[in-house]
Amino acid sequence: MLGAGSAIDPFWAIYQQHNNKEILSLLETYRIGNISPEDEVSTDDMGSPWAMEPKRHPLLKPASERPFNAEPPLTILAENFYTPNEFFYVRNHLPVPVIDVKTYELEVEIETDKAGAKSRQKALSFEDIKALPKHSVTAAIMCGGNRRSEMTEVKSVKGLSWGAGAVGNAKWSGARLRDVLLAMGVQPNENLHVILEGADLDPTSNPYGASIPLSKALDERGDVILAYEMNDKPLNRDHGFPIRVIVPGTVGARNVKWLTRIVVADHESNSHWQQNDYKGFSPSTDWDTVDFTKSPAIQAMPVTSAICTPLPGEKVKVSADGFVEVRGYAWSGGGRRIVRVDLTADKGKSWHVATLEQENEPDGRHYGWSLWTARIPVDTKLKGEEVEIWSKAVDSAYNVQPETFANIWNLRGVLSNAYHRVKILLN
Amino acid sequence: MLGAGSAIDPFWAIYQQHNNKEILSLLETYRIGNISPEDEVSTDDMGSPWAMEPKRHPLLKPASERPFNAEPPLTILAENFYTPNEFFYVRNHLPVPVIDVKTYELEVEIETDKAGAKSRQKALSFEDIKALPKHSVTAAIMCGGNRRSEMTEVKSVKGLSWGAGAVGNAKWSGARLRDVLLAMGVQPNENLHVILEGADLDPTSNPYGASIPLSKALDERGDVILAYEMNDKPLNRDHGFPIRVIVPGTVGARNVKWLTRIVVADHESNSHWQQNDYKGFSPSTDWDTVDFTKSPAIQAMPVTSAICTPLPGEKVKVSADGFVEVRGYAWSGGGRRIVRVDLTADKGKSWHVATLEQENEPDGRHYGWSLWTARIPVDTKLKGEEVEIWSKAVDSAYNVQPETFANIWNLRGVLSNAYHRVKILLN
Repeated sequence: MLGAGSAIDPFWAIYQQHNNKEILSLLETYRIGNISPEDEVSTDDMGSPWAMEPKRHPLLKPASERPFNAEPPLTILAENFYTPNEFFYVRNHLPVPVIDVKTYELEVEIETDKAGAKSRQKALSFEDIKALPKHSVTAAIMCGGNRRSEMTEVKSVKGLSWGAGAVGNAKWSGARLRDVLLAMGVQPNENLHVILEGADLDPTSNPYGASIPLSKALDERGDVILAYEMNDKPLNRDHGFPIRVIVPGTVGARNVKWLTRIVVADHESNSHWQQNDYKGFSPSTDWDTVDFTKSPAIQAMPVTSAICTPLPGEKVKVSADGFVEVRGYAWSGGGRRIVRVDLTADKGKSWHVATLEQENEPDGRHYGWSLWTARIPVDTKLKGEEVEIWSKAVDSAYNVQPETFANIWNLRGVLSNAYHRVKILLN
Repeated sequence: MLGAGSAIDPFWAIYQQHNNKEILSLLETYRIGNISPEDEVSTDDMGSPWAMEPKRHPLLKPASERPFNAEPPLTILAENFYTPNEFFYVRNHLPVPVIDVKTYELEVEIETDKAGAKSRQKALSFEDIKALPKHSVTAAIMCGGNRRSEMTEVKSVKGLSWGAGAVGNAKWSGARLRDVLLAMGVQPNENLHVILEGADLDPTSNPYGASIPLSKALDERGDVILAYEMNDKPLNRDHGFPIRVIVPGTVGARNVKWLTRIVVADHESNSHWQQNDYKGFSPSTDWDTVDFTKSPAIQAMPVTSAICTPLPGEKVKVSADGFVEVRGYAWSGGGRRIVRVDLTADKGKSWHVATLEQENEPDGRHYGWSLWTARIPVDTKLKGEEVEIWSKAVDSAYNVQPETFANIWNLRGVLSNAYHRVKILLN
């Protein structure tokens, strides 16, 4: 298949989500002819970029196979304060790169004079990074599109159909990015950015990339680290082996995996994912009117919560004294601690405050999620009937979730943080 | 009048909001007798604590006279990016103290060993503070109860009935609190607090007080200052002459006026206003079940916006091409920049993005408010009829306002940040 004068097969080998019947039949109408067999050049020798994908836990539910994107069952998610590594959601934009830790190198470049750095270039081996002071932080990571499937119910959006499981909470350990930059003499500057690039390459050999403000990278309370451990184990390949940057409180897309290059620059990353993807828009902005330059790249995420058990449609036993038990998670970006989760089983007539399980980290630096449990009274006359449970969280800046998806709908289906509503059957 | 064995007149002289017919007739039922004239001790010689109140602009609309609490007309508010000092809302908890700048002293005390300070006590004169490096910050200050009158419509709450005008935006100048603390050798410690006390005294001679986390006070990006200027003019008496602490991004109540004492301690302020007042609760928490220890003191405020013009019920001219013009403010706490304000005139069917007027400060340090203007198309067939305009703001962490007050109602009527809805008549 040809496009713009050259083969598009390598692109299609990587972005296999387009390789479906619907799109192929759509393309059929654009066929201008077939290349005669004697002119054909085989693309087989390129090998499949997917041949070296890691093995995944069979309970992960894929949102797409290639690139691999999958979330764990919600019940498992809410059972563990630290998400077991094999159940941590996987969000890959490209094939998983194969990296030999012995030859791995992280390049650090200070591109701009404005950073005031003494040293402009540095290469760190894996051992160099491990030799720096080790720092640990508990941080939830959430995909910008978590809970997109709920927003889609209002009107369709473009993006993987995630449930509420595109989030996980782990203890991450590694070197502070701050220490690396300060050692090079980088000075605080509110106008600079840190560009982060992975070893995962698109078909034109451009890496996955993102950026964060330099102020976040240098902030002692920002806890940005070059992580080599996840829950006290070496990173596995799906989560960025050997080094992944952890940017606590910030949307998953900026927590670049397989990190190979860091650039301090006076501009954000030029990558597709920084410029034309993870951004929010007004509900009335559509693909004809969208201007990605008009919206800032998502960094900190808004407050959210989800009910993990019971599951939608589940038959739930009502206790003898008329209660049902509900369990879930809540989180807010920017280090804002969850201060309360409210539940209702009567559409807001009465609200019940959940019991929180969370770390005792200070506000502004509370990057882990909160698990919560609540016993909610229900009308026992409703046994056998459907009841809807709503959850809403409040963070330390007293931001709350919006009530519905209609007024936060956006064409990319990101920032999908309205009340979580689950219909159950009382038993 | 006697209470708990001593005269309650001094309290009543100060808290004059209780001095009304309803409460007096309620108290009549508790009368146990009259003191015979020969036993009476005159309280006249105490003088009125209100005798020395400053003069205020006649356009300020009082929510209470004693203590004086008042807000400007919304139209004036939205006309000025920097709120003129005479129109800046006034929120006094007690009578305005009379302070002689020549004898004024700010006492700084490091109460706890955990601060690691070399110097434990310091007294700063007004001239000492002016001699420190001068720092300016644009910061909106908002009362925790701003827009309480809208929340009251759901169910009554306890507190002054503020409209949407208990907010103002100014350029504040003074010394950094950080510089004072660092000079005394205070070290960062996430568990410590800075207690702030004013010269305004309650009838038991306790000062108005509040506290903020030490991490905010020491943060270079926190911009906490001991302000002596407001919009380049000396502070006036209503706004804290001679020194007021400005805690950008934080609820008004922590921006203590007439500042006379600062204490670094391992606990929050014990004051009523820190412990038992400015806090949020679940909508189902009432005065019988409330436990103030269960909720954190409000620091950073949630995202909000309000329509300042047209006013409710106003007859609004529709332009020839079918538009109405709307204007207002938006703000979020914690230094989070407003990234978008959406308006609708058809209950969310279509949303229109406003044009923002704001400073170009970096996110996380964007403490000023944003004024906004939007031209919204209306159905010209509706001329002569009522149309409701809604505003909702989005901050840099992509938090949005909740849709309605019902689910954020709280017994103190604080954090009243649902969509602003204004009914107008199309002309």
